[in-house]
Parts: sequence; C-alpha cells; structure tokens
Amino acid sequence: MGNISTAVKHCLSYDTFLRDYPWLPRLPWEEKCFDQPKLPPFVRIVEVGPRDGLQNEKMADHTEVLKGIKRSPGVRYPVLTPNFQGFQAAIAAGATEVAVFGSASETFSRMNINCSIEESLQRFEKVIFAAKQEGIPVRGYVSCALGCPYEGQVKPSQVTKVAKRLFELGCYEVSLGDTIGVGTAGSMAKMLSDVLTGVPVSALAVHCHDTYGQALANILIALQMGVSVVDSSVAGLGGCPYAKGASGNISTEDVLYMLHGLGIETGVDLFKVMEVGEFICQVLNRPTNSKVSQATKTP
Amino acid sequence: MGNISTAVKHCLSYDTFLRDYPWLPRLPWEEKCFDQPKLPPFVRIVEVGPRDGLQNEKMADHTEVLKGIKRSPGVRYPVLTPNFQGFQAAIAAGATEVAVFGSASETFSRMNINCSIEESLQRFEKVIFAAKQEGIPVRGYVSCALGCPYEGQVKPSQVTKVAKRLFELGCYEVSLGDTIGVGTAGSMAKMLSDVLTGVPVSALAVHCHDTYGQALANILIALQMGVSVVDSSVAGLGGCPYAKGASGNISTEDVLYMLHGLGIETGVDLFKVMEVGEFICQVLNRPTNSKVSQATKTP
Repeated sequence: MGNISTAVKHCLSYDTFLRDYPWLPRLPWEEKCFDQPKLPPFVRIVEVGPRDGLQNEKMADHTEVLKGIKRSPGVRYPVLTPNFQGFQAAIAAGATEVAVFGSASETFSRMNINCSIEESLQRFEKVIFAAKQEGIPVRGYVSCALGCPYEGQVKPSQVTKVAKRLFELGCYEVSLGDTIGVGTAGSMAKMLSDVLTGVPVSALAVHCHDTYGQALANILIALQMGVSVVDSSVAGLGGCPYAKGASGNISTEDVLYMLHGLGIETGVDLFKVMEVGEFICQVLNRPTNSKVSQATKTP
Repeated sequence: MGNISTAVKHCLSYDTFLRDYPWLPRLPWEEKCFDQPKLPPFVRIVEVGPRDGLQNEKMADHTEVLKGIKRSPGVRYPVLTPNFQGFQAAIAAGATEVAVFGSASETFSRMNINCSIEESLQRFEKVIFAAKQEGIPVRGYVSCALGCPYEGQVKPSQVTKVAKRLFELGCYEVSLGDTIGVGTAGSMAKMLSDVLTGVPVSALAVHCHDTYGQALANILIALQMGVSVVDSSVAGLGGCPYAKGASGNISTEDVLYMLHGLGIETGVDLFKVMEVGEFICQVLNRPTNSKVSQATKTP
C-alpha cells in the first residue's frame, strides 16, 4: 500500500473502502479521494413518447388526444401549455397535469415560441398560478440546456437562471433538455453542477437526445450527480430515424437496460415496454430507435 | 450545511471539494465520501477498423493486406496470430506487432477457436515466447468479458483469470472485449473491479460493442475506473448495420466526441477521422454507424 497518496489515505477510514475498491493502489492519477459516485436506488422514468412522438410528430391536438384515450387510474396525462389560453383549453379537455417549456437560449426561445425568455417566463407564471389554484401539478422544461441550434454553446449559468425561475414559480420538477443532443458527459457535468447551485437535485430531471450517440453516457453522469428522474421515449419516438440528426429522444428500452444493469430500480417492466415499442412502430410504420429492441428482434 | 452526513464531512478537508461540488449538501443518498472520479488526462485510441472491418469482414488474408499497404513510420500494423504457425506467417509478411485472442467463456473458445481456454493459452505462450525473442510486442484480447452468446453471463473471476494469464505471459496490454455488446455500466464496473485485482490498470484496454447501445456508457465507467486505452472502429466498421444485433464496434468518431467533451486528450483529430469514415463507407457502400457522422452529414 506504499504508493497510496495522502488524499486517498484520508478516505481509508471508511470500512467499505478497501472492500469496494481493491484496485485503488494501482491507479496512476489518484490525487484526491477516489471513489465511485453512489447512484440513486430508484429512478423514475418519465415516458415522453405519447407527447413527443404522437402529439408533436403527428400534430394531433391535445384536446383530440385527451378525448380519444381511455384513461387508467393513477396515470398522469400531461399536456403542454405554452400560455394561459392553452392552459384553459387543456383543463377544459380534462388534463390533470400540465407542462411549460422554457429555453436556455434567447434565440431558440424567439424562434420556437416567438417571444423572449423573460416574456415566456411571465406567461408561465400566469399558467403556474392558475394551475396552483386548480391543484394541477406543473412540470417545467428547459430546452437547449447543452447547446442551441442557433447560438451553439449555452452557458450553464443561463440554464440555472431559467431552471431556478421555473422551480421558484412552482414547477414541482424541472427537466433539463439537451434538445439537439450535442451534449457530452463533460458538458452535462458542468451544466448540472451549476444548476444544482440553484435547484435541489430532487426537483431535477434530464431529457437527453441521442443525436450524437451520447445520451446514455450523459444520463449516467446525471445519475452519478444525484439526478433520479429521466425522460425517455418508447422506441425513441419523437425523432425521425432517417432525417438529418438520425435520432431524437433516447429510447426508454435502452435507458431501462442500463438502469437495471446498474441495479437501479425503476418499477418498469423492460419486456412490456419492448412490446409497446414494437406495437407502436408497426402502427407508425417506422423502425425502432431502440438498440436493445433491434438487437433482440428476430429478423 | 446542516444536512451533510458525517461521511461527507469527512471529505471536506479537501480544499477543492466545496468549489468543485457546490451541490453536495442537497444530495439525498450521500452515505460516504461522495466525489466524481478523476478521469485519465489522456486516452489512447486503438483503431480496430482495418482489422475488424476490413481484414475480418472482407476476409482478406493478412499477408495480402500487409503486402498491399503503404506503411508510414511510427504506425503499428498488428496482425492476429492464433498460433505459432500464424505468428511465423505474420512475421514473414512483415508484421511489427501481433495479437492473441483468448476468451473468458469456455464454450465460445471451443466454438470460435476450436480449443479450450487452457489449450489456447498454451498456444499463446509459444507465440508470446517467440515474439519476445524477435522483439515484437504482443497485445492480448479477452473476448466475452461481459457475456457470451452461448453461456450467457460470464463470471468476472473468469475474465480476471484469462486476463492475468495473458498479462503474465508477456502481453504488454490486455483488451477486455464485450464481444456481444450486452454489458452495462453495472456489469463493466463489476468485471473491471475484479480484473484490477490481477492486472494493473495501465495494462488494460476496453473493447466495447454497441449492440445494445451501451458502449459509450460502459467506456465512461471504465475511464472513471482508470482505464486509459479504448478500442474503437472508424465508422463502426466490423458490425453489420442491418443484421441482427444492428451494430458491432462502437465508432471511433462517437468515442472521440465523448472524450474531447470530457476534456480528455487523445491526439486524434475528430474531423479527419470523420473524413476517413466517409471515405471507407463510400468504398464499402455501407452507411456509417457513427451517430456523430450521421448527425453532421448534409443529407
């Protein structure tokens, strides 16, 4: 044990340390307390397939969708509500949860929802206020959290600013979205460490797109930093598989495969989700974006 | 700071701790020294595209390949040598590095190289002994390190046994291969922690297949555990994109994108690798398996 650095020795008083990390003495770049981060014991999956894949892609109106579906008790059916009028329409259609979408990028906000970030937050304030009075939970989203198609890099502090406002306005959870999928484990760690100065980790979720193939690695880093809510989409619905960018949402199947492999509980049955994915891909006549499904499907 | 656990307080004497981990007080499951693992400052990429993609897939003989290529100084041209005869042929053809392939799965060994693990190691011993006398470096591979197509789960101790033998016989490096891509960040961590009891981390590499979409997350875990050599393949060559399993080797492009995003040096120019990937995919008339290339290609 002669080559263990002082910083590492400092940690050796944990009784589990040597048992858990028998290889430690061999690491060449240990400089401080080397340890593997603890992972959350349970991760809640927020399935965005119906919204990103069906509502958005198929351009269906939420009123139509809410009226068409058969509801099950205990299931939330969130509806996107960009403003107060949208909120009223959603409530009239029977929505029991709503969502507001902010952006960390000024240009994306103007291009996407046609107003500045500040204006959008003021609209959301009205929605959230009304929702509180109705007892309707509101989820907040921050898009472009790791990059913007117009501005390129997005400062972590800008993400923190918007996420903190949404949380303080009353969103029970804020989902940080890598809308264009350009983030890496490195930029995710930097962004999250900034956001965590303003929002408690228990109120954060991540929403990763797999456009650059980085989604699972980015989610893994988020888990290691304490995030325990992950957005994903069955079969990766919500991204066009053969258009530029190749894919959008990370598939629920691939996320579950990783989480269960890490020993993390989700309460979700992977095989049933794979059946759902196969079904919806048949209906939509498109290939699945789930690698787990591709790998296990009989040709 | 009232809610910081004793175990975490124990770590607070590091002067960088609070600066680097400002969110720490909010984490609900901190029980012991919570920290993000240090990453290696430099990662060496071992490009396996020519071997897995061209030699194997195209079934070219290595003698033919070695005679056909124009060699550059400082570049290694490794050749697979399953036995002593193969080694002699490789040397005669001008190989300057050879590789031996062991398996962590008894059944895979018998199906793939037609002998038991023990028999294969005895053959390799002769190869490695002869290579030493010629001053030729030998790289070792352990296939099925995270799972076997015949046996299913593979015990970490079995991987350790084979990896340790290869290292002790004289392989300068042992690459641990998830041949069928079923591994997760969880099984990678378990397997590596076992192997690191027998082989120094500086002599280890990982070789991840992306069949289940897990390769980058698995590589990330390996980096966090100190591994600093990663095998990858330009354009993901070496896996058939539309066959069962969808993909094989993780693409060098996607690995580089992650590594550079983590601030890890590689000495490799991503854009040049992307050009190489585009070229070889045109020659082979197949689509790239690199998501980074797919995302940035103009349609």
